[in-house]
Amino acid sequence: MNSPFPTLYVDPDIVRSNIDRMVSKAEKAGVEFRPHFKTHQSKAIGKLFREFGVTGITVSSIKMAEYFLSDGWDDITIAFPANVLAHEYYNRITGKASLKTLVISEDVVQKLDRKLEHELGLYIEIDPAYGRSGVPVTELKRIRSLLKAIKNSDHCYPAGFYCHAGHTYKARSKDEVETISKEALQGLEAIQEHFPDLPICFGDTPSCSVLDEFGPVTQISPGNFVFYDWMQVQIGSCSPNEIAVYMECPVIEKFSDRNQVLIHGGAVHFSKDSVQVGDYLSYGEPMLKYLSEETYVKSLSQEHGIIQCSPDVFSKLNVGETIQIFPIHSCLTADLMREYHTKDGQVLDHMNGQQVGP
Amino acid sequence: MNSPFPTLYVDPDIVRSNIDRMVSKAEKAGVEFRPHFKTHQSKAIGKLFREFGVTGITVSSIKMAEYFLSDGWDDITIAFPANVLAHEYYNRITGKASLKTLVISEDVVQKLDRKLEHELGLYIEIDPAYGRSGVPVTELKRIRSLLKAIKNSDHCYPAGFYCHAGHTYKARSKDEVETISKEALQGLEAIQEHFPDLPICFGDTPSCSVLDEFGPVTQISPGNFVFYDWMQVQIGSCSPNEIAVYMECPVIEKFSDRNQVLIHGGAVHFSKDSVQVGDYLSYGEPMLKYLSEETYVKSLSQEHGIIQCSPDVFSKLNVGETIQIFPIHSCLTADLMREYHTKDGQVLDHMNGQQVGP
Repeated sequence: MNSPFPTLYVDPDIVRSNIDRMVSKAEKAGVEFRPHFKTHQSKAIGKLFREFGVTGITVSSIKMAEYFLSDGWDDITIAFPANVLAHEYYNRITGKASLKTLVISEDVVQKLDRKLEHELGLYIEIDPAYGRSGVPVTELKRIRSLLKAIKNSDHCYPAGFYCHAGHTYKARSKDEVETISKEALQGLEAIQEHFPDLPICFGDTPSCSVLDEFGPVTQISPGNFVFYDWMQVQIGSCSPNEIAVYMECPVIEKFSDRNQVLIHGGAVHFSKDSVQVGDYLSYGEPMLKYLSEETYVKSLSQEHGIIQCSPDVFSKLNVGETIQIFPIHSCLTADLMREYHTKDGQVLDHMNGQQVGP
Repeated sequence: MNSPFPTLYVDPDIVRSNIDRMVSKAEKAGVEFRPHFKTHQSKAIGKLFREFGVTGITVSSIKMAEYFLSDGWDDITIAFPANVLAHEYYNRITGKASLKTLVISEDVVQKLDRKLEHELGLYIEIDPAYGRSGVPVTELKRIRSLLKAIKNSDHCYPAGFYCHAGHTYKARSKDEVETISKEALQGLEAIQEHFPDLPICFGDTPSCSVLDEFGPVTQISPGNFVFYDWMQVQIGSCSPNEIAVYMECPVIEKFSDRNQVLIHGGAVHFSKDSVQVGDYLSYGEPMLKYLSEETYVKSLSQEHGIIQCSPDVFSKLNVGETIQIFPIHSCLTADLMREYHTKDGQVLDHMNGQQVGP
């Protein structure tokens, strides 16, 4: 029986296979695997990582750290720069777990240190020319001074360096990913030379999917690879059969004058993230027998989705049936859907589906 | 005390004033006011509409209809085409309330009618050249035939015509809104001539904000006007001081080499909706003393927001303080934030913050 509403499905076999591949890669490369849990935000999916011996994890918010701490994860990096307003929350977590977060400026180290009650690890965030956040990788003097401030603090200790090469998301082939990520690794070599005793953690899914060796890097923390999505296919990180999640949406109406179908499935289900594919912008990609270059989610409003179809796909779709669609950005789709279904009828948790603080 | 996390605030006085203005306009124009509740999705905000005598409402999903039904609203339009897979839900609601929804094809009327147990009102959805959904306004023959199918069904009755001129969102001035919406109204005149006994419901916020008279229209169902947002300012629907919601986000770090600040506030808080303002794409607009043409949310990732600042604004912002930001699209921001705070410490509900089915 098809659900009458947009539903997010996960295939645990593909999830396990994606985890297995990344665990093996980390082992072969001799780096610690500290996967990012911001994509799935699920205790049930987290348990699959435990099957592979994972103990240290990465999250993107304090709320998410508390969610996984409540399931027994006690070695957590919050891969977001320290928030001086949130000292009470850091104190709550550091009383129970080994917590690390990121830092960019001495000012924050000092402001935070005055309010901390327990030990907090600080990774210096390094910007590898991505331009979002972090100390530019070339500014060794500033990095040295920041490290000194961390060492001189009462409650903080240096956890190492954290580097997210988010500009790999602009790549559109494995070669392009490789070029960008190797440049980032090259920049990190100077960090390793000057601070050889400290770990270097490196994060993004495209780099970790495409590279086999990580040079100066000693830890990797990719997140999206657990599910992948249609954007990662475009980037060159994965193939469609490695995508572990899909949306199932009811076909509501057909518009034969324009080969379009209306589905129930909109911005509140998929998110408004999109990816340029050839000369169109895609908000989702119909899968299986509907996977076709001419068939894609053309637009989304709050609850409406419009699929532009090839004539062949259009003729196969029927009102009252459902269609399976790869999300563009699985992290945001999962964040909105707030639970996962499996084909055998299980429902897996998502942090947003629970009443958890803060 | 500032919250250490991204927080959505609502100003009930501005909400009341926005409702009051639209109620008065509807009264003067002699049209029934059936406001769309998809923007706020809140029983508490719904109660403010009750203060103004509103009894009939519009929602965008079956789930939302059930949410408001559970708070005593019993005259509800689901402004989304009928979903033949969801007959059990229609039956559940029509057992307790007067429910209307939209329809586009005879096929759906017939498929649905076989499964219905109670009376269901069907608005024929009219497409006023917007191109998303509906029977093109010019196709009178098809409309007549569909109307006949509704009248011939056992459980459905014609509720009238529903027309959403969503292409007003492409306007960038009051004049442009007026041109687009008057064209839409002109198209509806033929509908009125041929089917004079049936109501015509007309929906979008830009049209309802800018027009004072609605020609052949007998009902209006705008939604976003209750809060407005930065996109509506760009469209020409409202002024900044009519926006009733804002996000408050902690300032995490400052990057002096590029006049940018990092806030905690990302795609999981604001949504990825954006609006073109001059030559940049804005994901949010800092307000109050930071309202400036050169200052805007330049990019969002999952939890990160980067604000591009004028030199003056940059110098005024401090790490450890918060900044207030108008969302681009208040419907999607509220949908993600799942609760509203008021300056006097109340917390108002949002449907997504509750455990409600389906």
